[in-house]
Amino acid sequence: MTSLKHPETTAILLIHCPDQKGILAAVTEFININKGNILYLDQHVDRKANVFFMRVEWSLEQFTIPREKVEEYFDTLFAQKYHMSFRLYFGDQKPKMAIFVSKMGHCLFDLLAHYSAGDWNVDIPCVISNHADLEPIVERFGIPFHHIPITKDNKEAQEVRQVELLESYGVNFIVLARYMQIISDDFVARFPNRIINIHHSTLPAFIGAKPYHAAYERGVKIIGATSHYVTADLDAGPIIEQDVARITHKDTVEMMVHRGQDVEKMVLSRAVEKHIERKILVYQNRTVVFS
Amino acid sequence: MTSLKHPETTAILLIHCPDQKGILAAVTEFININKGNILYLDQHVDRKANVFFMRVEWSLEQFTIPREKVEEYFDTLFAQKYHMSFRLYFGDQKPKMAIFVSKMGHCLFDLLAHYSAGDWNVDIPCVISNHADLEPIVERFGIPFHHIPITKDNKEAQEVRQVELLESYGVNFIVLARYMQIISDDFVARFPNRIINIHHSTLPAFIGAKPYHAAYERGVKIIGATSHYVTADLDAGPIIEQDVARITHKDTVEMMVHRGQDVEKMVLSRAVEKHIERKILVYQNRTVVFS
Amino acid sequence: MTSLKHPETTAILLIHCPDQKGILAAVTEFININKGNILYLDQHVDRKANVFFMRVEWSLEQFTIPREKVEEYFDTLFAQKYHMSFRLYFGDQKPKMAIFVSKMGHCLFDLLAHYSAGDWNVDIPCVISNHADLEPIVERFGIPFHHIPITKDNKEAQEVRQVELLESYGVNFIVLARYMQIISDDFVARFPNRIINIHHSTLPAFIGAKPYHAAYERGVKIIGATSHYVTADLDAGPIIEQDVARITHKDTVEMMVHRGQDVEKMVLSRAVEKHIERKILVYQNRTVVFS
Amino acid sequence: MTSLKHPETTAILLIHCPDQKGILAAVTEFININKGNILYLDQHVDRKANVFFMRVEWSLEQFTIPREKVEEYFDTLFAQKYHMSFRLYFGDQKPKMAIFVSKMGHCLFDLLAHYSAGDWNVDIPCVISNHADLEPIVERFGIPFHHIPITKDNKEAQEVRQVELLESYGVNFIVLARYMQIISDDFVARFPNRIINIHHSTLPAFIGAKPYHAAYERGVKIIGATSHYVTADLDAGPIIEQDVARITHKDTVEMMVHRGQDVEKMVLSRAVEKHIERKILVYQNRTVVFS
Repeated sequence: MTSLKHPETTAILLIHCPDQKGILAAVTEFININKGNILYLDQHVDRKANVFFMRVEWSLEQFTIPREKVEEYFDTLFAQKYHMSFRLYFGDQKPKMAIFVSKMGHCLFDLLAHYSAGDWNVDIPCVISNHADLEPIVERFGIPFHHIPITKDNKEAQEVRQVELLESYGVNFIVLARYMQIISDDFVARFPNRIINIHHSTLPAFIGAKPYHAAYERGVKIIGATSHYVTADLDAGPIIEQDVARITHKDTVEMMVHRGQDVEKMVLSRAVEKHIERKILVYQNRTVVFS
Repeated sequence: MTSLKHPETTAILLIHCPDQKGILAAVTEFININKGNILYLDQHVDRKANVFFMRVEWSLEQFTIPREKVEEYFDTLFAQKYHMSFRLYFGDQKPKMAIFVSKMGHCLFDLLAHYSAGDWNVDIPCVISNHADLEPIVERFGIPFHHIPITKDNKEAQEVRQVELLESYGVNFIVLARYMQIISDDFVARFPNRIINIHHSTLPAFIGAKPYHAAYERGVKIIGATSHYVTADLDAGPIIEQDVARITHKDTVEMMVHRGQDVEKMVLSRAVEKHIERKILVYQNRTVVFS
Repeated sequence: MTSLKHPETTAILLIHCPDQKGILAAVTEFININKGNILYLDQHVDRKANVFFMRVEWSLEQFTIPREKVEEYFDTLFAQKYHMSFRLYFGDQKPKMAIFVSKMGHCLFDLLAHYSAGDWNVDIPCVISNHADLEPIVERFGIPFHHIPITKDNKEAQEVRQVELLESYGVNFIVLARYMQIISDDFVARFPNRIINIHHSTLPAFIGAKPYHAAYERGVKIIGATSHYVTADLDAGPIIEQDVARITHKDTVEMMVHRGQDVEKMVLSRAVEKHIERKILVYQNRTVVFS
Repeated sequence: MTSLKHPETTAILLIHCPDQKGILAAVTEFININKGNILYLDQHVDRKANVFFMRVEWSLEQFTIPREKVEEYFDTLFAQKYHMSFRLYFGDQKPKMAIFVSKMGHCLFDLLAHYSAGDWNVDIPCVISNHADLEPIVERFGIPFHHIPITKDNKEAQEVRQVELLESYGVNFIVLARYMQIISDDFVARFPNRIINIHHSTLPAFIGAKPYHAAYERGVKIIGATSHYVTADLDAGPIIEQDVARITHKDTVEMMVHRGQDVEKMVLSRAVEKHIERKILVYQNRTVVFS
């Protein structure tokens, strides 16, 4: 929401570094002194790991450092001194998001609804799928749909095609909206912390295929969904968002699937929104999700 | 709540059997025709397993079959014909519940609060613990406290003492209110579906010791608790109740433990209440929990 | 879900009547004896009001009473005897649902997503709106969109047009998916308990316009949404479903609106699903919503 | 939790003032430069009201300004300059909390459970009640219980007695744990934002007496509880915490009361915890509750 609500151009800085006294004061002082008006600031210190995290967004309207110099200045003045990792964004840059789907449309639909409503500062240049089922829906929204069927034999080659497509569209991050394929490590390595998956359980419970069936067999009273960044380890990447729904003994597997779909789409959309807003930092396979 | 609200004596019947046409009609007709006034009826058919479940409670005030004959009549007229498993209770029978604790008091406290308030139709003849820490609290409530320390070497003998105590008090079921010991298979076998445990995770996630630490390491956004009947398999018995709480990256393990305790006590108390109300049926390691 | 999962034709009966002994037994016996296979049964007795409620669904495959005679037989044999109100449906009858919208699309989108996915046993013959904004979206789904602008002066006439349209399409019930107009009493009277509204607060809090603004002013920590049947009293009809989301002091009115939209669409879709499944009974301005 | 986890002495500063550039930098710089180690920092800017809010906690171990001078220095250097309202606490100061009760014990019990467990940095010097019912429970915990019956005629005089008692105990704040009396404006004025009440509805729904009965009549699907600071307007003070529970058509008023009690006690205990941790700022009848 942030970027959309501030029509003037803003800079967004995401930082993490070893904690030490004075970082917060130094960074805010730097922005203030150069006439940046801070619109958002949130910070967190992980005292166990001794790491400082910060997200700050400020207006560039009267900022005295030219936009194209901000990164360089920040790097020189702070990042090296404090051993920081940082990412700098500008509020008027729209990230490009590709959506990967398979046959089920509930998550795709919810993403497209937010997109159509203008809720998010994002472009969707393409949807990619290993099945053609959802092509008509995607085309209704005027978004190119690419059907790239995957088999055991062609997977490597088809992933090359996918990567070429993503590059041709200038895609920044990928959303797996119930895409039922496992992504290869090579592919994942090209998009570190930039592939968002939705898994239909409250991980780490019910890793892998058919979690609702497993949940039914175990007789649980709560089902859930987990959105996480994809890493080389299946269903083990940094968790962004989770939520649950209550079920009872009356719920069959089919009813659990049905109820679960509502949770899945909400959890995925919330995670995607946070990513678009540049509010997520990843550290040691965990996320800091700013409010 | 049910029994307490109907001062007249009631009979409660819990049934399960292979599903077939006419069971529900036959049982309700039997009660009606003999002038029992049905106060509660809930039923469930598991169409996958083809099993019929039912809980019915009726007033005995004008019931024409004498109380001491109800079981025999029902067995003869229905149970054998329909291959039923059934349990018969009377609303004026107070079950006797033993509480096992270790050092942490939050679940114990919540159980004693409900007990003191007269919320539940139950007696608590004793509390048993492997530590003496909670003795002063229990004694404030006028409940005998038995300190039975467990070590690797004396476990078998001490369980014998526990069983003798429970028998001497006429205990019907046991609540493990964060009792940090694993109960032996022999002990469990004496109380089938009559030992209620609280586990501090949403099972099957984080089975075993230190679930909050594991949850922290995994970077989850939701923690929870599970109440289940104890079986020979660790943390794998039929689940009665689960609930969760949201956490964020700001929560340390200590804060997760603290927040989790509120969930644990609520989940355990709800499960105990359902058990006291005789609203739980167990079938194939799953529970039917009537509303 | 029920109807969709049973491809054979089913009959669905919704009943309420003064409670008395033997109703449940009599009705189930009637179905059993005539070779109807009961697929679903749920009942409720409101002991305060002394009213019996029931929903039963059975297969007509081997049912010995012809489909077109069921209503007459049931009326003669039971309804008159027990002073019942009842409604009879057949699982293969698809109800026709009209959607009324204004400018906001989030609820409409969620309804169309469920519709497109085939989740619901329903037809959507038309969407009606006082604004043209959502026309392109509706047309993508191949559904006729009727733009009927409402002003103070033309309201009566335009409602006549709306009713004519609804009749021409054979509409059974109406969903107000954030339709920002108040419906006249005459209109409401034509569709008793057949107009479903979504109000963006947990009624009865924040009745009327701008509930999020009012919630912000009051400094609440929870916002919510309520789906209810429309009656002549504004926001006072029988409640079908409610849900909430947590907010904090960080949430502006705009963020509350944004978060609230997710709750609104979920609550409305759940209510619509229950209505489509014929699982709602209305009695004394309250609903019985079967599971 | 904070204070308990840092055995060394800490200072806690709660600030609000008109927002302007540089406040955050200035305050953190002040602490850093004087060798205070910041253990916690959270801030919020209400951009609509243009107000800056902050909570910062730092270790005094190596802080170069003597403890007894901190307030004076901060006032001189910052508060006057920035037109701040501020409050300064020290982590080793235990606030004194009086509990007011009537006949129902569920909230009292939960507070005493947290107190007994040492969860909170608080003393409870006394419990005051207009009924004697809960005296035995309170005495079990070794806390003085004062029975001060209130009638229409003696209310003014009895409130004088209450105030004298509170003063004699050095009470800092009061928790109304389902105390069923309305406090006079004079009394409230003595404890501004220092009387915490629990109301058994999600305010502003169901203000006043018997909210569960009103909720039942309205046919709601969700009940809740609200904890707020008491002001001269009944049930209209700044809200600290709210939560809800789902109910169904099966729930009678009695069952709603029973279920609601669990929500009430959780909501009250969470609010009290935040107050004890000095994490609440009140501004324009709204609260900022730091995490």
